[in-house]
Amino acid sequence: MAFRGKKLINDPNDVVTEFIEGLVETYPGLQFLDGFPEVKVVLRADVSSSTYDKVAIISGGGSGHEPAQSGFVGEGMLTAAICGDVFTSPPVDSILAGIRAVTGPMGCLLIVTNYTGDRLNFGLAAEQAKSEGYKVETVIVGDDCGLPPPRGIAGRRGLAGTILVHKVAGAAAAAGLSLADVAAEAKCASEMVGTMGVALSVCTLPGQVTSERLGPGKMELGLGIHGEPGAAVADIQPVDVVVSHVLNQILSLETNYVPITRGNRVVLMINGLGGTPIMELMIASGKAVPKLQLEHGLAVDRVYTGSFMTSLDMAGFSITIMKADEIILQRLDAPTKAPYWPVGVDGNHPPTKIPVPMPPSRSTKSDEALSQPRQLNQQGQILEVAIEAAANAVVNLRESLNEWDSKVGDGDCGSTMYRGATAILAEIKNYPLNDAAETVNEIGSSIRRVMGGTSGILYSIFCKAAYAQLTASSQSVVTAKQWAEALEASIAAVSKYGGASAGYRTLLDALIPASAILQERLNAGDDPCTAFVLSSEAALAGAESTKHMQAQAGRSTYVSGEILASVPDPGAMAAASWYRAAAVAVMEKYRASS
Amino acid sequence: MAFRGKKLINDPNDVVTEFIEGLVETYPGLQFLDGFPEVKVVLRADVSSSTYDKVAIISGGGSGHEPAQSGFVGEGMLTAAICGDVFTSPPVDSILAGIRAVTGPMGCLLIVTNYTGDRLNFGLAAEQAKSEGYKVETVIVGDDCGLPPPRGIAGRRGLAGTILVHKVAGAAAAAGLSLADVAAEAKCASEMVGTMGVALSVCTLPGQVTSERLGPGKMELGLGIHGEPGAAVADIQPVDVVVSHVLNQILSLETNYVPITRGNRVVLMINGLGGTPIMELMIASGKAVPKLQLEHGLAVDRVYTGSFMTSLDMAGFSITIMKADEIILQRLDAPTKAPYWPVGVDGNHPPTKIPVPMPPSRSTKSDEALSQPRQLNQQGQILEVAIEAAANAVVNLRESLNEWDSKVGDGDCGSTMYRGATAILAEIKNYPLNDAAETVNEIGSSIRRVMGGTSGILYSIFCKAAYAQLTASSQSVVTAKQWAEALEASIAAVSKYGGASAGYRTLLDALIPASAILQERLNAGDDPCTAFVLSSEAALAGAESTKHMQAQAGRSTYVSGEILASVPDPGAMAAASWYRAAAVAVMEKYRASS
Repeated sequence: MAFRGKKLINDPNDVVTEFIEGLVETYPGLQFLDGFPEVKVVLRADVSSSTYDKVAIISGGGSGHEPAQSGFVGEGMLTAAICGDVFTSPPVDSILAGIRAVTGPMGCLLIVTNYTGDRLNFGLAAEQAKSEGYKVETVIVGDDCGLPPPRGIAGRRGLAGTILVHKVAGAAAAAGLSLADVAAEAKCASEMVGTMGVALSVCTLPGQVTSERLGPGKMELGLGIHGEPGAAVADIQPVDVVVSHVLNQILSLETNYVPITRGNRVVLMINGLGGTPIMELMIASGKAVPKLQLEHGLAVDRVYTGSFMTSLDMAGFSITIMKADEIILQRLDAPTKAPYWPVGVDGNHPPTKIPVPMPPSRSTKSDEALSQPRQLNQQGQILEVAIEAAANAVVNLRESLNEWDSKVGDGDCGSTMYRGATAILAEIKNYPLNDAAETVNEIGSSIRRVMGGTSGILYSIFCKAAYAQLTASSQSVVTAKQWAEALEASIAAVSKYGGASAGYRTLLDALIPASAILQERLNAGDDPCTAFVLSSEAALAGAESTKHMQAQAGRSTYVSGEILASVPDPGAMAAASWYRAAAVAVMEKYRASS
Repeated sequence: MAFRGKKLINDPNDVVTEFIEGLVETYPGLQFLDGFPEVKVVLRADVSSSTYDKVAIISGGGSGHEPAQSGFVGEGMLTAAICGDVFTSPPVDSILAGIRAVTGPMGCLLIVTNYTGDRLNFGLAAEQAKSEGYKVETVIVGDDCGLPPPRGIAGRRGLAGTILVHKVAGAAAAAGLSLADVAAEAKCASEMVGTMGVALSVCTLPGQVTSERLGPGKMELGLGIHGEPGAAVADIQPVDVVVSHVLNQILSLETNYVPITRGNRVVLMINGLGGTPIMELMIASGKAVPKLQLEHGLAVDRVYTGSFMTSLDMAGFSITIMKADEIILQRLDAPTKAPYWPVGVDGNHPPTKIPVPMPPSRSTKSDEALSQPRQLNQQGQILEVAIEAAANAVVNLRESLNEWDSKVGDGDCGSTMYRGATAILAEIKNYPLNDAAETVNEIGSSIRRVMGGTSGILYSIFCKAAYAQLTASSQSVVTAKQWAEALEASIAAVSKYGGASAGYRTLLDALIPASAILQERLNAGDDPCTAFVLSSEAALAGAESTKHMQAQAGRSTYVSGEILASVPDPGAMAAASWYRAAAVAVMEKYRASS
């Protein structure tokens, strides 16, 4: 099953130089030294060694840990980053070139992750630079808490905690401190920080074969960031358990890696390893904070969640905890232009949650006005008749709608519409029928409660849009013209949110011609009842015409033209039927009362 | 081989609420509505509907696309984000809650990605909110360019281009524009933007089995962000080819999806899909910019590279191109506190690269002073004798060193040291022997050029540190005391960068006792020659004593104590030997000349 790891790259040998080219295209504040492929140095575009009056902060190391280190170059953080090849320490000449490019009379601080290659190459570069007259200090960061205390020369590895050291040093330098003072703050910070990682996968080097070291269901604890095996392999646990374990390891009194005890203030960093979605990182943050507070008795002053020091495409994260005092917090909060330092993490923490707001009270109308009045006025009586007729038409059409829908859809159009209609019939006794707008709104609410599905939402939208249009005119008696405008508004809303237009074989193919004829007849001076009846004939004709339409929405799009031609669109037929029934019932009511 | 996808989560049903909890722990500017699990709304902590005097900008949709949408909540961008479950549109009541929580008298704009569920749910919420008296406008974004022009209702999907629309709308609202004007700018922006993606893997839903749809060596083009299959599957190509193809598709005159033609100004977004390292994203950016400029004749005003709208852990990226005019650029550049909007991407682009700086000229010394003088002074003669003796001692010891090293290391100590020694013997004729400091510096350069390996760098550091110490005193004749100080500085540097201390079974176990005795004898008033010889005896004794030491560095740490006891550390023996040889040779030279 082993195969070459999938990557969107060109020549695997060019990944670092091509990365740098993209980085400077993205961030105009960054430049690189024109020394590819040997010299791969990213530096602030606004710094020149001849004029720079602050301590330069320089870091670097093997690539593959992006955004570290080059993504942290910027005012207030690194002045230059020296990039080696993937997981390979940069050569001395490259480091020297970076030192020479940005170091002014205030000198430079090299922040070096604790790996033999980095120590030696940066060390030689530092000594060479000193011999050229530069003031150079070096701080070596080894924040790993994943391995037992080492006996020998290697010491603890430099992990994501290094980024916090960069920030402290960069802010101290930006504040104008001397090289000795900047180095002292960086060294102090490096002694306050501990990190431990957990991985679900092994990273794949560009052009290499993907490792299958970690099987399904396994995770690695105390990992390195170069694909080296972790301290232990375990079955994957819920992240709650993983976070607890890692926090306990970092804060262990036995190893005593970080000088953090109950009552201290700390900052937390959850660092993605390259292939971990933000969702998972945030879940870990959300779990780590209360554990630090409640189980370890610590105040968590800042939380940094993101991908800071990665291991190519490795899935997993590391947790870093740094003891924080006022000075460290001030340095961490200080502004920086480094592109990958997180923004918006400082400041006071308001309550994390606030109550869900209540719907606004229906200010202008009394409760009484929103229930069935004791006495229906003429408009109320007509509305009652129309609603009952429309709902009953849908009830009666249930089987036919289901049958048509079974040929071109999922066969439940009749049942869905029936649910809405019966709810309306059941609840009509509570509708404020003397207020047409409010009644339409209540119909929408009935539908939304029971109907479900796309058609349920579309009819809810239909009613809500009509309600908004009717209340906009805010007269107690709704004219035929206002009903026509409401219909037009409803059609517009259904079309906008549903995405259908005329000819898409939907309910709009009944309602659009109905609306057109209604307006035409009213404008021509027809009496409203006649206009509505003529309009409802157009609705029926429109619904019938859907037989000849290609489906453009829903499941019907997968049905053959031959079958489509045998039945009308059930949604359109339903709409035409209730509209027709209402129009006819209103006509009859007027005739009876005249 | 199908197995449950590895994720660092707890209950898969809780991923969205736990994500939100971590998000607000990280960013104190964000809050959420206390309505879990139904209502999952993230909002600006500094906005209250009762006092908010700007147009509120609201977006949302299914989760799994982090940082979209909640990571873009903040002043100058979104006012609230409504989160559905993973890949599921949020319910209407949740959207309504968000609208009510942040919408003031200026109203709100809903920015909705073009999916049926989002359109309907946001549509109904919009109509409901209008019926409650809110001013609401809706803009639907469909920027997908990966599929051929659709015939029907579905239209183009909303992809990462939506984030640019958020930014335009958010900046317009922050500038105090009316709802109509904000909506008009957002709509205009939505019509200027096109996106297409390429994926190397299918995303895995929390708690679900990982899909094997895409086999080794395959990629999917024109993908959706919910795991739906792409428009085409192809063999993986170099990213150069992939970028060209995607750009051609987006800018195709045939589909005419975006109104971009030669001579236009554009902004570019390279959007990681969740599992893609920054390195790969930056490589794509670096390739896309010149292609847009040279092949498509476009000016690229801004580049946004990062993960903006993802698909859980999917590997791959999408490319978005937006036509830019002055107003759009102004909106994109406007400040925002949204945590995931990239910083440092605006401003003038300086040259992307600058020359590698030259080493500083050796200001105070002429070229002549840095080559072999015609006439050696006494110090020069002694130095010549010492160097030749030391180098010859190493040459003579080659086989022994290799033999010892073959027992406790990789067997090349003698060969490595031999390379350095022979280079020094060959180059001594060019050393400025009358200047001891410069000569030591040149020895370091000879070693660095040829020796390689850890010992090569350590000896280079040794010489550079001695040089820096000798030049600090800056006298033409170097006293024995100054030599002793230089040795001490060299030992300190080797210990610092190499990480070893006394007793680690390294060359320091010869040099540290030598340095101690040298200083002791000089302080006691011994004549320098005697002091050096006594010191060299201490070096030899120290090297011999390494037999009884546990190894703490390098490969020797893996060797048994029994074998270690049979040989001294070859590095310590080499150091003692050249030091001893030099001391004896100098002593003899003085005797001969006295």
